[in-house]
Amino acid sequence: MIVVMKAHSNNEEIQHVLKFLQNHGLSGHLSQGVERTVIGVLGQTGNAGLPSGIGGITPGLEDSLEGLPGVDNVLRVSKPYKLASREFHPENTTVEVPVACVADGSVTIGGKDVVMMAGPCTVETEKQLMTAAEAVRKAGAVILRGGAFKPSTSPYGFRGLGEKGLQLLAKARHEFGMAVITEVMTPSDVAMVCEYADILQIGTRNMQNYMLLDEIGRTNKPVVLKRGMSATIEEWLLAAEYVLSQGNKNVILCERGIRTFEKATRNTMDISAIPVAKTLSHLPIISDPSQGTGHRHLVGPMTLASIAAGTDALLIEVHPNPDEALKDGAQSLTIQQFNELMPQAQAVAHAIGRDFITR
Amino acid sequence: MIVVMKAHSNNEEIQHVLKFLQNHGLSGHLSQGVERTVIGVLGQTGNAGLPSGIGGITPGLEDSLEGLPGVDNVLRVSKPYKLASREFHPENTTVEVPVACVADGSVTIGGKDVVMMAGPCTVETEKQLMTAAEAVRKAGAVILRGGAFKPSTSPYGFRGLGEKGLQLLAKARHEFGMAVITEVMTPSDVAMVCEYADILQIGTRNMQNYMLLDEIGRTNKPVVLKRGMSATIEEWLLAAEYVLSQGNKNVILCERGIRTFEKATRNTMDISAIPVAKTLSHLPIISDPSQGTGHRHLVGPMTLASIAAGTDALLIEVHPNPDEALKDGAQSLTIQQFNELMPQAQAVAHAIGRDFITR
Amino acid sequence: MIVVMKAHSNNEEIQHVLKFLQNHGLSGHLSQGVERTVIGVLGQTGNAGLPSGIGGITPGLEDSLEGLPGVDNVLRVSKPYKLASREFHPENTTVEVPVACVADGSVTIGGKDVVMMAGPCTVETEKQLMTAAEAVRKAGAVILRGGAFKPSTSPYGFRGLGEKGLQLLAKARHEFGMAVITEVMTPSDVAMVCEYADILQIGTRNMQNYMLLDEIGRTNKPVVLKRGMSATIEEWLLAAEYVLSQGNKNVILCERGIRTFEKATRNTMDISAIPVAKTLSHLPIISDPSQGTGHRHLVGPMTLASIAAGTDALLIEVHPNPDEALKDGAQSLTIQQFNELMPQAQAVAHAIGRDFITR
Amino acid sequence: MIVVMKAHSNNEEIQHVLKFLQNHGLSGHLSQGVERTVIGVLGQTGNAGLPSGIGGITPGLEDSLEGLPGVDNVLRVSKPYKLASREFHPENTTVEVPVACVADGSVTIGGKDVVMMAGPCTVETEKQLMTAAEAVRKAGAVILRGGAFKPSTSPYGFRGLGEKGLQLLAKARHEFGMAVITEVMTPSDVAMVCEYADILQIGTRNMQNYMLLDEIGRTNKPVVLKRGMSATIEEWLLAAEYVLSQGNKNVILCERGIRTFEKATRNTMDISAIPVAKTLSHLPIISDPSQGTGHRHLVGPMTLASIAAGTDALLIEVHPNPDEALKDGAQSLTIQQFNELMPQAQAVAHAIGRDFITR
Repeated sequence: MIVVMKAHSNNEEIQHVLKFLQNHGLSGHLSQGVERTVIGVLGQTGNAGLPSGIGGITPGLEDSLEGLPGVDNVLRVSKPYKLASREFHPENTTVEVPVACVADGSVTIGGKDVVMMAGPCTVETEKQLMTAAEAVRKAGAVILRGGAFKPSTSPYGFRGLGEKGLQLLAKARHEFGMAVITEVMTPSDVAMVCEYADILQIGTRNMQNYMLLDEIGRTNKPVVLKRGMSATIEEWLLAAEYVLSQGNKNVILCERGIRTFEKATRNTMDISAIPVAKTLSHLPIISDPSQGTGHRHLVGPMTLASIAAGTDALLIEVHPNPDEALKDGAQSLTIQQFNELMPQAQAVAHAIGRDFITR
Repeated sequence: MIVVMKAHSNNEEIQHVLKFLQNHGLSGHLSQGVERTVIGVLGQTGNAGLPSGIGGITPGLEDSLEGLPGVDNVLRVSKPYKLASREFHPENTTVEVPVACVADGSVTIGGKDVVMMAGPCTVETEKQLMTAAEAVRKAGAVILRGGAFKPSTSPYGFRGLGEKGLQLLAKARHEFGMAVITEVMTPSDVAMVCEYADILQIGTRNMQNYMLLDEIGRTNKPVVLKRGMSATIEEWLLAAEYVLSQGNKNVILCERGIRTFEKATRNTMDISAIPVAKTLSHLPIISDPSQGTGHRHLVGPMTLASIAAGTDALLIEVHPNPDEALKDGAQSLTIQQFNELMPQAQAVAHAIGRDFITR
Repeated sequence: MIVVMKAHSNNEEIQHVLKFLQNHGLSGHLSQGVERTVIGVLGQTGNAGLPSGIGGITPGLEDSLEGLPGVDNVLRVSKPYKLASREFHPENTTVEVPVACVADGSVTIGGKDVVMMAGPCTVETEKQLMTAAEAVRKAGAVILRGGAFKPSTSPYGFRGLGEKGLQLLAKARHEFGMAVITEVMTPSDVAMVCEYADILQIGTRNMQNYMLLDEIGRTNKPVVLKRGMSATIEEWLLAAEYVLSQGNKNVILCERGIRTFEKATRNTMDISAIPVAKTLSHLPIISDPSQGTGHRHLVGPMTLASIAAGTDALLIEVHPNPDEALKDGAQSLTIQQFNELMPQAQAVAHAIGRDFITR
Repeated sequence: MIVVMKAHSNNEEIQHVLKFLQNHGLSGHLSQGVERTVIGVLGQTGNAGLPSGIGGITPGLEDSLEGLPGVDNVLRVSKPYKLASREFHPENTTVEVPVACVADGSVTIGGKDVVMMAGPCTVETEKQLMTAAEAVRKAGAVILRGGAFKPSTSPYGFRGLGEKGLQLLAKARHEFGMAVITEVMTPSDVAMVCEYADILQIGTRNMQNYMLLDEIGRTNKPVVLKRGMSATIEEWLLAAEYVLSQGNKNVILCERGIRTFEKATRNTMDISAIPVAKTLSHLPIISDPSQGTGHRHLVGPMTLASIAAGTDALLIEVHPNPDEALKDGAQSLTIQQFNELMPQAQAVAHAIGRDFITR
């Protein structure tokens, strides 16, 4: 951490900062330039409650320093996350998911191959789910998505079938051999969802629901952590840090579009988040081009773009009859469209030396 | 709702839309212009589960229509919220809060006068809280703020004293006669926080924590609903709709800055949200210039700006010794600064024909 | 255009709107719903100065309507641009550029194949330019980029060699047979730049420099129109409309990243703009992953992502010695990195059924 | 400037950075911490072309350093602007404008008092302009605004009367004694506009039209520099630096709203920009609540908020008959509304110890 004093700050102010640092068990290294003085902070600035070896800046400290008289700015030098950071864990993390329909009995997310997760946005009826599941399995998906608990921007919208929906998902898994990924929205539902699902999904609006992150961190289940719609990559990795610090290593990041000024798309898919996250973190990262665009005709191009950029998996909404979808019909692919997309996705994966795990 | 067909859409596509509407108990009114056809949707597009008389567009319907072949765009005509809407509730809502230190024994938020709520960002120690409480009471605040449960972007940051913090807040209320406002972060804490606090605060990161909104909606307590850092005003009012629709009418909106590209401030305070919200909704709206700017020297100007724009209350962070604050020290006012701010705030309130309730 | 009245607007207000429309040679079609009245605007709302057959909403009209008493909102039904719109020009536009080093003597941008444009960000010295030009030509680029006039955020930054830079570009064209693309920043430079360059580039900060758009529109040269860093796709197509309406049909859109809250990248590359623009417009669209990310290690992934999403060309910064670049060194590829990228780009192009034109 | 190396960077990489600095006449001060090495850059990093005493970071240098192997990040310590910076010019700048209708014959912008500038968005007809001018003068405005050259997002919109409009403005000045402020859009118009106007306005879309900034900087006229709709305050002050560095000291900043995700307002007025700019710079700063909100009913509250936050002047659109305005009618106040606003504005100004100069 570096404390930048204002130009023309006086010696009293500088001494005050040094003393403050001392009181916190740190020391300051003065560098007096032509225009201004800069103070390098030395010593362990981490929080005492951290596992040994993990440093980092105590947020409160940075804040307080910034407020001291004469201080212009405090610049952070290290990243505020450690467990999620590639700097301290150079090897890629891979997450194993049990999948009955593939030869090995499991798929690896974050490994050499790309994984397709598909299914309806929401579990609406048994027939709808089974039809979608059968179709996506045929086309090459190995993990089934479907929402039982849906976040609805309006209190009057459909909120999902709840446990009934989870049961249908489990039935589909049994029937078609795909693993199941579904969203859990509140800590008190975590245990129940763990019984039915293979991967827990934390939705964009819950990326900073810290109680939920803690609760899920205390399980062993693979977790897909969706980026908050306005979360910086740093905040996203700090959210991952919550889960990791509770002991659950199986965290998968998911880019699903961010909020910008552009309204032609529901969100703006931040494809660069894929290579950026892979540079900063060792965690796998996947893409949701359905939420990420909000429009059916954009799902294909953004799927291919994600693969070309290095995504480890896709999470695509497919509905047997999107016209009748209770939610998000406009962004769901038809079964035919999904069938057409898979070989295109395969071709792009091959072009970058990867393959889709489909059996 | 209006369905705009693409230019050169064919009759088959138009008929398909009309049939779709029919299947949903609606009808379409065709308007065939030179360039394109536009279909007005008639009939009750609301969700059957709504209280009678409350219409509105079922989100799923709008989505599905948008995905139909030949459809360019679907334009919504009515607002998606009703209980929060001034169009259906023209009279201002006022929220009563019991406050022992004022003559009437209660203060009205959203009435003729402006209310000052102040205190430390976080309850750290008994001494810190009592010192701050005594000082802000003296200066004219009637409601004490202080966090017992703090959202921390990093898992290594200070998260608050929990119930112990609530007890200290209750003690301060007893001692100084101010009402207490504090944040509750998860549904399972709602009951406990209700025992100690007079106003429940829903934080920016929880504005779309729907389980939490529902739980709080089932209480009677006044609620301060902070705007999500990237929430549109419409999404904000829909979040209010969640609380209102559970039966709790005592909802107070709070502008606390939104996320933009500008980094000179921690958030960008959206002062225009005050008059905009008052136009669209009947709910009181207050301001948090501390979170809203992140910098101590900006709190004063943004307090005065909020008052001039019509805010019903301020929520200001004051710390006896900000240098030592465990969180957000850089944006906390010192006691002296708060003492200087109050008369300025009063002067601006008078200039627009209002007053601060201080005794 | 549709005028949405406020709920409970009165008949006087409705009549006022109808009369206003009448005064402007339009008529209104009343639709009185349960909650509110909606008025469809009929008749030609276009500007009299437009070429015959081109309608559209006069911006002033929409504005004025919105301000009438009782009006809640005005919804536009048609797009405000016509010449740029695919709805009225369904066939793709292709732009021919003379290129000596390919068999045909020209390349087509927006046709079946993808085009590589590469070179240094800025023309610094003859040696630097020739070295870069030779290298990128060898690797497969057919169009040379290089800035002679550079926009500099700071008045103290390097602003380019001016005409001397243009002369060096012309020399490189002569030597290596590539066409030249370079930025022109002000109307009075247009004629001069036309003498030296094959493609004129309008930079992101000049997307709404209307005088410049007009001037360039009066030439015949191919134009690359960079998206404003905060321009909606609609504003971007309206800027294209400026150029097109002056008679110059050779407009190529270029996505170069937009401004968002994320600071890990210099801009956020909006890959979805590629398929969105292709849906709304018939103009070719290309990508600049160098400006779009600001970081060398991201240029490769975003190049591949752009190709997978359907881009018609890339515009990549390559410097023989980025450490010594006068501008934007951090985002320039080395020659070796560019050599490694080309075959990867080819592979992804093949995967989607396209090829790079390289000879 | 501080170069932060990646964790585990090797000695070779560190030496490479030190050598690079040496080659540029700088030196590096190594600070090797537990996790990583940080290198403080010492020596004059400014551009040789600057007036003596003016340092600052050469943008190219920062960029190049960031691209060196092993470098994680480069942190800038000083501001990139000097002439605009309060750190080097602690006294407020005031700008004198000749105004015949006040006792002194001139008004000071940035001094003790607040100034009202008002008039129509665009000069449409002589009658419209004179009616508006007379009315705003009566109500207390001392400077008349009116556009002769209008930026129009659509090529089909009204672009202003050009020189004819300037002549009408000059006529109104002669008649009512107010100074005139009007926008100039391109360098070749600067001389002509200087003949007619007292204050030149640089519009939001031209904030980075560097040729225009240079040209205007070569005049002596007071300049109102509107913030780019997505410009950071730093970029804004760098644009001011362009004008200042050409010798024109009379630069006035104008906040007019920034682009955000919120669509309820045309732009989001950034009121905090007022105190932030006053902290970072010595230049006066004024507000445009008309462009800043886009809606008539918001202009009043945002005017009062701006005054309370410390604005030095307002720039308000007033039209005798907004229903018939050729542009921006929805945000123009009627004459009656402006008459009602002035006393409110006065009251708020008094509340913060200031006054409006009206005679």
